[in-house]
Amino acid sequence: MRYIDIRSDTVTQPTQAMRDAMYRAEVGDDVYGEDPTVNKLEEMAAEIMGKEAALFVTSGTQGNQTAVLSHTNRGDEIILEETAHIFTHEVAGTAFLSGVQVKAVRGHNGIMQVEDIEKAIRPENIHYPKTALICLENTHNRAGGTVTPVEHMRDIYEMAHRHNIPVHLDGARIFNAAIYLGVPAKEIARYADSVQFCLSKGLCAPVGSLLVGSEDFIKKARKYRKMLGGGLRQSGFLAAAGIVALTEMVDRLAEDHENARVLAEGLANIKGIDINMETVQTNIIVFSIEGLGINGDRFASMLYDRGIKANGSPDYGMRFVTHKDVTREDIQTVLKAVQEISRELVGI
Amino acid sequence: MRYIDIRSDTVTQPTQAMRDAMYRAEVGDDVYGEDPTVNKLEEMAAEIMGKEAALFVTSGTQGNQTAVLSHTNRGDEIILEETAHIFTHEVAGTAFLSGVQVKAVRGHNGIMQVEDIEKAIRPENIHYPKTALICLENTHNRAGGTVTPVEHMRDIYEMAHRHNIPVHLDGARIFNAAIYLGVPAKEIARYADSVQFCLSKGLCAPVGSLLVGSEDFIKKARKYRKMLGGGLRQSGFLAAAGIVALTEMVDRLAEDHENARVLAEGLANIKGIDINMETVQTNIIVFSIEGLGINGDRFASMLYDRGIKANGSPDYGMRFVTHKDVTREDIQTVLKAVQEISRELVGI
Amino acid sequence: MRYIDIRSDTVTQPTQAMRDAMYRAEVGDDVYGEDPTVNKLEEMAAEIMGKEAALFVTSGTQGNQTAVLSHTNRGDEIILEETAHIFTHEVAGTAFLSGVQVKAVRGHNGIMQVEDIEKAIRPENIHYPKTALICLENTHNRAGGTVTPVEHMRDIYEMAHRHNIPVHLDGARIFNAAIYLGVPAKEIARYADSVQFCLSKGLCAPVGSLLVGSEDFIKKARKYRKMLGGGLRQSGFLAAAGIVALTEMVDRLAEDHENARVLAEGLANIKGIDINMETVQTNIIVFSIEGLGINGDRFASMLYDRGIKANGSPDYGMRFVTHKDVTREDIQTVLKAVQEISRELVGI
Amino acid sequence: MRYIDIRSDTVTQPTQAMRDAMYRAEVGDDVYGEDPTVNKLEEMAAEIMGKEAALFVTSGTQGNQTAVLSHTNRGDEIILEETAHIFTHEVAGTAFLSGVQVKAVRGHNGIMQVEDIEKAIRPENIHYPKTALICLENTHNRAGGTVTPVEHMRDIYEMAHRHNIPVHLDGARIFNAAIYLGVPAKEIARYADSVQFCLSKGLCAPVGSLLVGSEDFIKKARKYRKMLGGGLRQSGFLAAAGIVALTEMVDRLAEDHENARVLAEGLANIKGIDINMETVQTNIIVFSIEGLGINGDRFASMLYDRGIKANGSPDYGMRFVTHKDVTREDIQTVLKAVQEISRELVGI
Repeated sequence: MRYIDIRSDTVTQPTQAMRDAMYRAEVGDDVYGEDPTVNKLEEMAAEIMGKEAALFVTSGTQGNQTAVLSHTNRGDEIILEETAHIFTHEVAGTAFLSGVQVKAVRGHNGIMQVEDIEKAIRPENIHYPKTALICLENTHNRAGGTVTPVEHMRDIYEMAHRHNIPVHLDGARIFNAAIYLGVPAKEIARYADSVQFCLSKGLCAPVGSLLVGSEDFIKKARKYRKMLGGGLRQSGFLAAAGIVALTEMVDRLAEDHENARVLAEGLANIKGIDINMETVQTNIIVFSIEGLGINGDRFASMLYDRGIKANGSPDYGMRFVTHKDVTREDIQTVLKAVQEISRELVGI
Repeated sequence: MRYIDIRSDTVTQPTQAMRDAMYRAEVGDDVYGEDPTVNKLEEMAAEIMGKEAALFVTSGTQGNQTAVLSHTNRGDEIILEETAHIFTHEVAGTAFLSGVQVKAVRGHNGIMQVEDIEKAIRPENIHYPKTALICLENTHNRAGGTVTPVEHMRDIYEMAHRHNIPVHLDGARIFNAAIYLGVPAKEIARYADSVQFCLSKGLCAPVGSLLVGSEDFIKKARKYRKMLGGGLRQSGFLAAAGIVALTEMVDRLAEDHENARVLAEGLANIKGIDINMETVQTNIIVFSIEGLGINGDRFASMLYDRGIKANGSPDYGMRFVTHKDVTREDIQTVLKAVQEISRELVGI
Repeated sequence: MRYIDIRSDTVTQPTQAMRDAMYRAEVGDDVYGEDPTVNKLEEMAAEIMGKEAALFVTSGTQGNQTAVLSHTNRGDEIILEETAHIFTHEVAGTAFLSGVQVKAVRGHNGIMQVEDIEKAIRPENIHYPKTALICLENTHNRAGGTVTPVEHMRDIYEMAHRHNIPVHLDGARIFNAAIYLGVPAKEIARYADSVQFCLSKGLCAPVGSLLVGSEDFIKKARKYRKMLGGGLRQSGFLAAAGIVALTEMVDRLAEDHENARVLAEGLANIKGIDINMETVQTNIIVFSIEGLGINGDRFASMLYDRGIKANGSPDYGMRFVTHKDVTREDIQTVLKAVQEISRELVGI
Repeated sequence: MRYIDIRSDTVTQPTQAMRDAMYRAEVGDDVYGEDPTVNKLEEMAAEIMGKEAALFVTSGTQGNQTAVLSHTNRGDEIILEETAHIFTHEVAGTAFLSGVQVKAVRGHNGIMQVEDIEKAIRPENIHYPKTALICLENTHNRAGGTVTPVEHMRDIYEMAHRHNIPVHLDGARIFNAAIYLGVPAKEIARYADSVQFCLSKGLCAPVGSLLVGSEDFIKKARKYRKMLGGGLRQSGFLAAAGIVALTEMVDRLAEDHENARVLAEGLANIKGIDINMETVQTNIIVFSIEGLGINGDRFASMLYDRGIKANGSPDYGMRFVTHKDVTREDIQTVLKAVQEISRELVGI
């Protein structure tokens, strides 16, 4: 049986073009810097983001953590939005790997105000860690795939640089932001000293992310990647699919956004569902099912019985994600199922 | 010239009785467990707090960090109130030393709600660190020396233990809380698996804090203390003063609270000063000088010109602390000075 | 131009069967545990090594470091042979990631004596870290691909378990050891609580290693892998090649060993080359070129001019490695080149 | 009953002059930099060692670990003699606190050869940590209080600086070395970028050590000390005793050396005791009791029955230490006891 899978865009199956590219990929030992396909992908990534250099990593987490390692020293503090992926979903890696403390700042729709960030920067004091990095996330996953406008990124970046603090962008879904804003990704990347972006997720590559930044930064990051066990051998296979992702799959994201909007509008009309349409910008929809009187785990289980895979939760918060393998028809099926559950639980 | 020093109760001079006790102290090599005065202090501390064992440490920071090390494993997460000393004033030690991430919870007057803490506990998930510890602070320094009632400590403790999560109490000023609540300190300590409390600060000993808990816990902590360089030799001298602190100096804290109240009431009547009297419970007063139109650094400098040492700040928040070496007369001098500054800046 | 590449067996190109398997691979999101090919590989690996469970990791380094993380607590000590890969070639990862100290023991041909290991185990003492792990390496890379006999592994294992200390085996090339000893790999793995072995290197898969051990151990390791950024999505592509490696490529290693012997015997007859034939057991040859009067970097450069890639070194130590992409004819070409260089430098 | 205590010079009782100095000590809050006695001690220490600045720490371990923290970044490697205190007796602190790996080099009588150190320095390679620090120990504790000559220190220092690697000296007993060499301590300290030396041990102060180095280095170290919980308040009491130690107690060490020599010569004549007189240079004697056929723990227990406290060991290695509280008469008593034990165990 085929399930409609709206848990995450990480579940996307690679395309036939990717399989073909992998099959034909020319590969070498990348620890020696000799995998031509990895080298090509890294050059392409640096070019697309307008940075000097790039590094292929096996996951967004590895890209983000390597960035934090490369920007900081042990005992520093970094500023993050309080629901940022780096803070909430990377297994305390910042503390564990980098030995840095997170100062979490409350954002609105995942976006921190410039003055709130500035207030969180530590003055010099024997009791205080040094503020060594500001991390942004665009689009912002937990806030619902929300987009930080380019101007706001610039304001943060300029303030940060006045304090000599670098900015890292967790751009796992930066192309979703670029599509939404109608700008090339490098316009967003410009206001960050380093950017991590994913080839998997909406772009459908099987494995991998890229970290981009200055040459010095990437040199440092390459060594940290080795320490994390991210130094791969014939990784050109993964890179080959990544090149297809960057070449052929970016524009397609617009469809996911459209599907997400249709899905969100449908949900908004269902009794017991509460959704803030302001946050529906890209391919992620967060909403509350408090009105249904059940928690997310129960809701997910009821959806599963109807052929739909969704991530549950111990409370009322739900997240649906659209992607290549969810069609417009699937969206209607999901809406029908939710409608049905709503009727069952709270009547018409 | 004698300055009135209201920066902190850490500046207190030891008493004559302490000097006498130090002079006569019987000492030995504590790394071998052979300093009789340290041993006596540790027994006394355990007894006072109603715990199995105690460990003498050189500072509140060392006591807190040793506790975090002993309760957690690398890669865990701990819950703290967002202005807790452990989080804000211990140089990112939790990340650096323990490799644990801090999940900060917003409190009211330094007190976190039980349900907010419970919501911050992580369910099991491959992306999540394990919630390994909840830290409380009573009295709460940055919130203005505010006191968490015994019943609230109990509620947190019981919830935590339902989740099999231990509770550490940063009780740097636990005796101030005990005096305020009119209960023995062990009534407060009962609802924590480990407690750190200071002999310096209001109790006026020159150096040192104690960490108390179960025998197993203290055994672990003793080894971590050694690693931090806190294994001392003839530390009985410091312990001797500490014994005087515990024996003779606790009840005296009531005077500091009274002085703080007089000072706070006086400040409340001065134009340009905004103070929330609800938070004035023990020996710390936090207030805003926004109405004076200057920041804390400037204000501190103006006080200094009038013979008063106070800690400044880059914004409008100020903190005054009363202690043994600040008399009722000094309080009047301080009020007069602030009155004068207020007049100068904002008129009558 | 085609170079003969004897730098390492990591440079091996994947086979056509691997490309075919990758092309057809059924994949899913492995972070959700839903990649059928990864699951199949992990089951196969556990079965082959006689352990309860297995974890696919992106490199030998990631497998080893994850094992150290899973066996130890911060502040422990681990015992390693002094030229072990984990100690010398993993960027200080044990200190950095695990916070454990390495007690290096001198071995003979990479093999530590049982009594030397036992002497290195720390008694309980407030100054001492706890000895938490013993790591072995079989075959031993820097010692020249040397093999630890099964009986010796058993003796170490039994001594370790008398002290309640687990044993981890860096079995990056365990199949080379198994071929040499004429036993199934699981006979070697039996005397280790965890084993890391590589699919790349002699087995020619493009990327990846496996960590095997008890179910509890692998559960812990899976979370640490996530933290290192080793949680992959559709990694079934890599796993598909890995399955071919385990199914079709193991027996072939005997050829590499034969080639290595031919190469070593040839080198032994060349003036200026000093090689201890006792260490030539598998596919790695270490030898000294002190007699040539040049260092390894210069030697490697002279080989390069003759169409041969070899790793240099700042001193006289050289290492050649045979593998699938080095034929018997290539061996003769290498010998001819070395002969030529020898003549040029030290005459006949 | 009074025991003769030859376990360590850490057991020394402070002198009456120290108690007097402590009694009268002028103190302030050292976290604010306002303890005049601490300030005086730090200035004195910097002056004596010929360095720009100094920091009072609570133990030799804290001084050494703070130095390693201040000289390195996480993931670096440091070079140490294989029985150095920092490596063997500081609870794996280098790995745990600094995240650096120890490359241990075998020395002779605790002294590493320049070329052995140089060989241990890592070239640049993606697999290698950076060699960030060389640590020396003079006198060398485990080697028997042996002294590294000034010229040898210079040779190491110059080689290190050619590689841009700083040198830290664990000079816990640097004054013993200075007395032995007949030079001022600063002649030894000259060939180290930072030095830690103890006020306790032979100098008899109750608690404390000093770390000296450049101003920048000490500024960094001061912050790390705070993180370890070594930021003290009215620590002038300890500093007062330390000033007496530096002023009055240094020359007296010659007596300890003389007593050690008498003791060693006596032991050398006792059957079953094997002692290398070449290592008897200062106040520490290491020797073997293999000839007695018992291990160190049993030997220590037999000494204890005769009124002598000595540290045991699970093997045949023993260490006796002379200090202020061991008189020449005590030495004779110890020799008589060992003679008696020897007779009992191995006859005349």
